Amino acid sequence: MKATGVVVEYNPFHNGHYYHLQETKKATGADCIIAVMSGNFLQRGEPALLSKWKRTKMALLGGADLVIELPYAFATSHAPRFAFGSIYLLQSLGAESFCFGSESGDAELFSKTHEWLNDKQETYQEHIRSFMNNGLSYPSAASRAFESLDIPLALDLSKPNNILGFEYVRASRELGSHIRPVTIKRKNADYHDVMLGKGNIASATAIREAIFTNDAEQAAPYMPGYTLELLAQEQVEKGTLMNWERFYPLLRYQLLSTNPSEINRFYEVEEGLEYRMIEAMKKSDSYETFMKHLKTKRYTWTRLQRACLHVLNKVKKDEMLAILDSSPSYIRVLGMTGKGREYLGSVKKSLDLPLVTTVSKYDSAGLRLEAKTSLVYAQGAARDILRAEKEEFNTPPVIV
Amino acid sequence: MKATGVVVEYNPFHNGHYYHLQETKKATGADCIIAVMSGNFLQRGEPALLSKWKRTKMALLGGADLVIELPYAFATSHAPRFAFGSIYLLQSLGAESFCFGSESGDAELFSKTHEWLNDKQETYQEHIRSFMNNGLSYPSAASRAFESLDIPLALDLSKPNNILGFEYVRASRELGSHIRPVTIKRKNADYHDVMLGKGNIASATAIREAIFTNDAEQAAPYMPGYTLELLAQEQVEKGTLMNWERFYPLLRYQLLSTNPSEINRFYEVEEGLEYRMIEAMKKSDSYETFMKHLKTKRYTWTRLQRACLHVLNKVKKDEMLAILDSSPSYIRVLGMTGKGREYLGSVKKSLDLPLVTTVSKYDSAGLRLEAKTSLVYAQGAARDILRAEKEEFNTPPVIV
Repeated sequence: MKATGVVVEYNPFHNGHYYHLQETKKATGADCIIAVMSGNFLQRGEPALLSKWKRTKMALLGGADLVIELPYAFATSHAPRFAFGSIYLLQSLGAESFCFGSESGDAELFSKTHEWLNDKQETYQEHIRSFMNNGLSYPSAASRAFESLDIPLALDLSKPNNILGFEYVRASRELGSHIRPVTIKRKNADYHDVMLGKGNIASATAIREAIFTNDAEQAAPYMPGYTLELLAQEQVEKGTLMNWERFYPLLRYQLLSTNPSEINRFYEVEEGLEYRMIEAMKKSDSYETFMKHLKTKRYTWTRLQRACLHVLNKVKKDEMLAILDSSPSYIRVLGMTGKGREYLGSVKKSLDLPLVTTVSKYDSAGLRLEAKTSLVYAQGAARDILRAEKEEFNTPPVIV
Repeated sequence: MKATGVVVEYNPFHNGHYYHLQETKKATGADCIIAVMSGNFLQRGEPALLSKWKRTKMALLGGADLVIELPYAFATSHAPRFAFGSIYLLQSLGAESFCFGSESGDAELFSKTHEWLNDKQETYQEHIRSFMNNGLSYPSAASRAFESLDIPLALDLSKPNNILGFEYVRASRELGSHIRPVTIKRKNADYHDVMLGKGNIASATAIREAIFTNDAEQAAPYMPGYTLELLAQEQVEKGTLMNWERFYPLLRYQLLSTNPSEINRFYEVEEGLEYRMIEAMKKSDSYETFMKHLKTKRYTWTRLQRACLHVLNKVKKDEMLAILDSSPSYIRVLGMTGKGREYLGSVKKSLDLPLVTTVSKYDSAGLRLEAKTSLVYAQGAARDILRAEKEEFNTPPVIV
C-alpha cells in the first residue's frame, strides 16, 4: 500500500479541505491518506473550535484514512518546528509523499528555493537579524531578507501557504528523508481571507468569523453536511463552540495574580512581554480588547496569541524545550477508516515509534502535556471535568 | 479622648453588631470606637459578601468612629495570628480597652484562664499533640486538651467566641500591653447558627445563608436599613454579592493546571493536601461539592477554606510568613466619622506606625499583598479590572 500525508487543523473541515483531499489522491496516486492533525490548540495560538474527536470524524468522512495527533508542543510552535514535527511523524509512518496546498502550486520550485537559500544561508540570517533590529517581526524580516537576496524565479515567500510548504520541504531535507513533496495550487480562498467568497470554497478563518458573528447560516454552503452536523452536536453538548473569549476570564486571572518573573518562565514570553501582557490585561474587558492593547509591530498577532496560549496552559520554557529539542516520541492514532487500519497493520512491525491508541496505556512527557492542556481546554465550556480527563485518556480511535 | 477597640468582619453588618457597638460604648465609657476590620477575604476562608468600602460605611453608620483594615495575612490566619494582628493595631492606635462579644460575658474569667493555662503550658501542648495524632483537627484537639487539664471554673473553650476572646486576651498579654479586655455576653444568636431566629438578632452566617437561598426578604428584619441599602447597591454595581461559588472556575483552573509541587508552596497547604485538592476538584462541578469531597476529620472546614483561599490568591508560604513573622507595619484607615478624625488627630504625633489613608502613596509587602488579592477579589464579578485596581489604590477613607 502507498500512503501520502497531509498536515491539517480542520478548524473546521470545509469544502476546500475536501477538495484538497480529493486532489491529493489524484496527484500522489496514494491508496491511503494520513492526516497529521493538531489537537486542542492550534498553530495560530487559538483553541480549536470543537473537539479533536469530532474534527477527526470530519477528516475521516472527508477522505482521510488515518488521523494522527500532532503533539501540543509542535502544534503550537512557529512554522519550522510545526513543520518538523509533522513531517517527522509522516516519515515515521512510512508515507511515500506529502501533499500541501500552496499559492505557488509548483513543488519543484520549493525544492529549488531551498537549495538556493541554503547556499546563501549566512547572508540570509544576517539580513533577517538586521531587519528585526529595525523593529520588524520575524516573519516580516524573513520575507524582506529573502527578497533582498534577489533569487531568480524564486517562490513568493510572503504568501502564508508558500511559507508553510517551504518549511515542510526544509524539514524533510533536514531529516534526510526520501519523502516526496507534492503541492496543489489553492483554489479561490486565501488562508487569511476573512470574507466568505463566491463559489463554495471559503477559508476556515472566514467560516469561523461567520459562526461567531451569528452568520452561521451564511457559512453553511462552504462546509459538507457532516461538518454542519458535528458542529451542531458540539454546540448541544458543550453549549458553545470554543474560541479565545471563552478562556478570557482564566487568562485574566492568570496574568493578574502571577508575579511577572513567573510569567516570564512561560514559553515564548520574552523581552519583557510579561509586563506588556499585564498592562494590556488591566486595560481590557474582553480577549479582543486585550489583544488590541497587546499588539505591537515587533510581534505578529499569531506569535502573541501563542505566548498567551502557553501562559494559559502554564507551559514553561524548559518543559516545552525538553519536548521540542527532540523529535515526536510516539504516534497517537485519533481515528482511522478500514483502509487506514489496513495500512497501519502493514507498517506496524517496521515502526520505530510506539503506536498509541489509548493514552491511559502509555506514558511520556508529550502525552502528559497533552493531558494537562486538555484539562484547560475543557474549562472553556461548562462541563464535567472528570469526563474531560476520561475522554482524553480513554477515548479509543474514531472508526469510520 | 478615650478610645476602645472592636475586631470585626461585618459580613454583613447586622442588628447584633449594632447592639454590640452600643453596649461597647456603655461598658467601656469610651468616646471613640475603633473597628479593626478584615478586607476582601475573611478568617473563615471566605470572600466578603461586599466590598470593604461598603462594609466600612455600614460600620460608621452603625456606631464605629474609625475603621482600620486588618491586613490579608492576619485576616485570613488562624485565631492566634488573627487576634495578634488585631490587638497589635488597637494598641498601636492607643486604644485604652477592647471589647468583644463572648458566650461567657465575664472578662475576669478570660484573664484567669490565661494564667492557669500558662502554668500548665507544657502538659497542654503535649495533650494537643496527642489528640491530633489521634486524627483530631487542631481546634478539637485544643478544646479536648483544655478539658483534660481540669481547670476549676474555667472558660468554656469549646465556644467559638470564647476562643476568639481568649486569643485577644492572650495576644494583649504577650504584647505586654496595658489594653484592658472587656466582654459583652452575646445575645440570642450563636456565631455558627444557620437559622434565622426569633427577635431581631441573627448570626451573619444565617443572614448570608438566607441571602443566597433567595430568602433575602426574610433576612431583612435582622439588619439596619443602611445595610439593606448598601447590599442592594452592591448588587446593582457588581451584578452579584460575592461568595466562593463566584471563584469556583478560577480555583478549578488553578488546581487543575498547576503542578502539585507548586500548589504545595502555597500557605496552609500541608501534608499532601495538594493531591487531595486536585482529586476533589476532578470530582466536582461546584465549590460546594468540591468542599464536600475535600473535607476530612483531620482539618476543619475553615482551615480547608483558608488553604483554598491562599491557592486562589497564589499566596506562598514564604510570602505569608515574611509578613506574619513581624507585626503589622502600617495603619490603614478605611473610614472615619468626625469623632474618629478628631481622635486620629489627637494621637497622630505619638503613633509608631505610618498612617496610610491612600494606598498609592505608601509601599509595603503587606499592602502589595492587599493589592494583589484585591485584583483576584474583583474577578469574582464581571467588572472593569482597571476600576478595581484604582479603587484599591486611590479610594480615600470613607467619611460619615
